[in-house]
Formats: sequence, C-alpha cells, structure tokens
Amino acid sequence: MTLEFKSWMQDVQARMEQTLKTVLPAADHLPSQLHTAMRYSVLDGGKRVRPLLAFAAGAVVDASPDRLQYVGAAVELIHAYSLVHDDMPAMDDDVLRRGKATCHIAFGEASALLAGDALQTAAFDILTSCTLADEPRDQLKMVNILARASGSLGMCGGQGVDLYSVGQALSLPELEQMHGLKTGALIRAAVMLASYCGVAISDEDRGRLDYYAQCIGLAFQVVDDVLDEEADSATLGKTAGKDAANNKPTYVSLLGLAAAKQKAAELKAEALAAIAPFGEKARGLVLLADFIVERTN
Amino acid sequence: MTLEFKSWMQDVQARMEQTLKTVLPAADHLPSQLHTAMRYSVLDGGKRVRPLLAFAAGAVVDASPDRLQYVGAAVELIHAYSLVHDDMPAMDDDVLRRGKATCHIAFGEASALLAGDALQTAAFDILTSCTLADEPRDQLKMVNILARASGSLGMCGGQGVDLYSVGQALSLPELEQMHGLKTGALIRAAVMLASYCGVAISDEDRGRLDYYAQCIGLAFQVVDDVLDEEADSATLGKTAGKDAANNKPTYVSLLGLAAAKQKAAELKAEALAAIAPFGEKARGLVLLADFIVERTN
Repeated sequence: MTLEFKSWMQDVQARMEQTLKTVLPAADHLPSQLHTAMRYSVLDGGKRVRPLLAFAAGAVVDASPDRLQYVGAAVELIHAYSLVHDDMPAMDDDVLRRGKATCHIAFGEASALLAGDALQTAAFDILTSCTLADEPRDQLKMVNILARASGSLGMCGGQGVDLYSVGQALSLPELEQMHGLKTGALIRAAVMLASYCGVAISDEDRGRLDYYAQCIGLAFQVVDDVLDEEADSATLGKTAGKDAANNKPTYVSLLGLAAAKQKAAELKAEALAAIAPFGEKARGLVLLADFIVERTN
Repeated sequence: MTLEFKSWMQDVQARMEQTLKTVLPAADHLPSQLHTAMRYSVLDGGKRVRPLLAFAAGAVVDASPDRLQYVGAAVELIHAYSLVHDDMPAMDDDVLRRGKATCHIAFGEASALLAGDALQTAAFDILTSCTLADEPRDQLKMVNILARASGSLGMCGGQGVDLYSVGQALSLPELEQMHGLKTGALIRAAVMLASYCGVAISDEDRGRLDYYAQCIGLAFQVVDDVLDEEADSATLGKTAGKDAANNKPTYVSLLGLAAAKQKAAELKAEALAAIAPFGEKARGLVLLADFIVERTN
C-alpha cells in the first residue's frame, strides 16, 4: 500500500466516521437504548469499503466530498443493518463482528431487530435530507438505485438465496448469482450513486463504472472466501471457517484455493481495463482494486 | 356507514390490493420463499386505513388516483413490515394477525426477518419508481417524510419506547408520545405524502391536514385500546387482551373505559374542525374519521 493511498484512505475513513456520528441520532435521544444500539453497530468499525468506493468513483465525475460523504453514509448504513440482522440467531447466529460482540449479544434480540430496521430507514433519510445531485430528478434516481440494490431483488434477496441454499450443492453460476445480489448489488450501488453526484457523464461512461463495480464486488467476495479459508478469527475480526463448518459452498470449496486466487486477480484486471479510459481521475478506483484484492482481513 | 362511503372504501381497498399485487415481486421470482412470505404478509388482509387516508387527503388537492395508489402502497408496506417484525418472538411473540398465522409462524423466523426488511425497502423503491409529484423536489421531500416517519425518531422509535417501557408505569403524556411515534407518525405520513401529489397548497392548509392526521392517529390508538378491552380475538383477528395481560399501559387502563371513549370522540371533533375549511373536498376525510372512531375491529 502506498503512503499516498494509505493517507487518502484514512482521510475518507475519518470523514466517514465523523459523518456517521453526525447523521445518527444521539445516544441520549429517546429511545436511548435503540440509538445506543444503532451507534454501536455502525461507529468505530469496518473498513468502510463502500464509502471508499463512493469517494473514488466520485472523483471520476468531480463530485464534491460534501455530497459523497452522505452517499457513503447511506450505503454504509444499509450494509450495517444487513450485518446486524444477518448475525441474529434466526440467521447466522454469530457472536463476533468487527472484533466486538454482535448487536444482539450486546443489546438483546429485540433491540438488534429494531436497530437494524431503523438503520435501513436512516439510509433513505440521509439520501433525501440535502442536495446530493444537481438535478432533483437525479437524486430521486439515486434513492431508487439504493432501494433496488438493497431489497428482495438485491442484497436482501441474496441473503434469502444464501439462507435457502444451506446444505444444497450450489453450482459456480448459482454461487456467483447469490454473491452478485448479497454483496455485489450494494457495492455497485455505492459506485452508481456517486456517479450522479458530480458532472453529467455518458451512459457509456456510467456503464464503465458499473462494470468496474461488478468485477470488484465479485472479487471482494472471492477474497473473502480465500481469507475465511486461510486466516484465523483474530485477524478477521469475525468467526473464521464458519462457511466451511456450515457446509456452505464458497469459491474455495468449488474452485480450490489456487484457482480462487487466480479468479480474484482476473476480476481485478477486468475492472481496471473498464476504467482505463478515465486516466488519472480513476486513480482512487485503481488503488482500491489493489487494496480489495490484496487485503488480509 | 353510508352506502356511498362503503362503496368508496371498497373501491380504494380493491385498487390497493391490485396495486400491492403488482408492485410486490412475483412469488415464483428468486428467492421464491422470500417473495412468498412478503406477499403473504401484505396481500389479502388489513383495512388499508393508511391508504384510505392517503386517498381521502389526496382528494383535497385533486391528486390523481394513479399517484395515490403508489403512496398508499408505500405506506402500507412500511406498516406491513413493522407488523411482521413486531410479531416475532423477540418482540411481541404473536401467532395470529389479521385472522391468519403470523409470518414467522407460517415461514420461520429467518424468512420473517428478511421479509420485513425487504418490505421496508420496497416502500422506498415504489416511492421513487414513477412520477408522484409535479416537481421532483417535492417527490424527494415525500421520500424524506416517509423515512422520518418510519425510523428511529418515528414508528420504529415508538416500538422501541413500547419495548423498553414494558413493566413500567407510563404517564398519559408518555403513553401519547409513544403512540404518536408508533402509530401516529405513519398515519401522518400517509396524509402528508398525499398532500404533495396534487395541486400546490399553502403551508397553512398542509398544517390543517397534518393536524387532522395527528388527531385521527391518536383516536385510532385510543379506539384500538377500547376494542382490545371489549372485543374477543375472533372479531379482532388478532390476540385480544394482550396488552392488559402483559401489564402494558393503555388508554383504558389509564383513563377507564368511559373516559377513553370520550377522548376518542373529542379527538374526532378536533380533527373535523381542522379540515372544515376544505368543505366538500374533505368529505372522504370526514367519513374516514367516523369510520376509524366507530369501527368494531
């Protein structure tokens, strides 16, 4: 990781922490248990990969960081809500997330249920609370993109496919479809939303950003599976080896470790080829692709 | 109930059923278990009070039913998601809703969790999928109103206050605050959203609609408590007497039965006074106020 990239990443992460602190209701605001659980589940944790992607994509369209921080916050809150609910006993029944107790362990199941619900709502609140695109019509489109990416035909649908396929042998295309929904849809949304925050671009250029996001989203999941196979819980900050223990299909179980690593590298190359025409403006996206594929947790 | 009102109500209910059937993904769309659970939780049930309020308020601003049906659907999906999650074991642990098994009883807890999540998202999808106000800026405002009304400072917050106050003695103002959030906020949102779908109106007139909605929302809850005290489960379509059994404070437990009925009547009178200046255009709102306060289930 270059010093320049590390410094940019830390700047965005610090800005996001500050934004998230501001947009979430104060912990002492009634009902304070709910707001405490919401803040616990969002603040002080996570790599903020989706906001980083929003900032890097926003640079391609010269978008203002003052807009991108709210796009990043909205997408991050959707991500956080999905983790809170996914960790609950009815779903993955996990006790550790980002190195700390999961929300329902810390606050009880009822609070985790409500906190997840309210974090989702907060995302749509943030996306409509101030001007994020020059044209209100474009901002409406942004809300629609986030909703489509998050709902039963996007992220939540992917969690359903994952849930209903436990114990079933998924083919590689089925696994890709599941991850395309479960993780990929929201990563694409982060990039697509940012693409509306700056100067107008052609459909072709937006398609380039979208293709980059698709490849990176899939690569992200492949790397996740590789890390889940190789790393231990302390490095990951969550329970390692869980998918294998649950007999869930992964890229590693379907392809083997070496081919999975190869696949991640190929996806990165495709992503970079798609955004090559943007030149220097896509520098953040290039460095992020490296970061996502080379990460160790 | 006049024949004219009954016929209008049935028309709106039939139109809403059709709209909800159309906006929800087909049951055979992947993941079909999730979409089946979503449709089960929304279709063929409920009085559609919030959509009825949206249609009646929309008449005041000459709004097109083609817009109001989507406003009604969005608000109804938020309501339906809150019921699905509220019925879960971690919350109210209820087995009966609208005369049928609750979602988690019929489909399991994981599906109920995801179905509720995806129903919430679908509301924001619907509200941004087609033109619902003449100005995109107004439609953005509508999305924001729905988000604020649904989130931790609105409906979801009210559920939190309800949850955290179990076994505690609430005062009448605290009870009103809880219900103002838990039920009132979404009822106000139904009316406010509709007010942006037609011709422009003054802030004063919008305030009149809002005050009507506040009074009716509170009256709705007072009547709920009265019915919960008086009716049996077969008439209600849900478990009767649950609040009393759980030692939850109600208007009846705080005021007594006669005074609670009196309060509902007073709230109705206040609501009607607020919209009197709209004359014949507010006829639907007047009849709905009667319906909500005089209902028996």
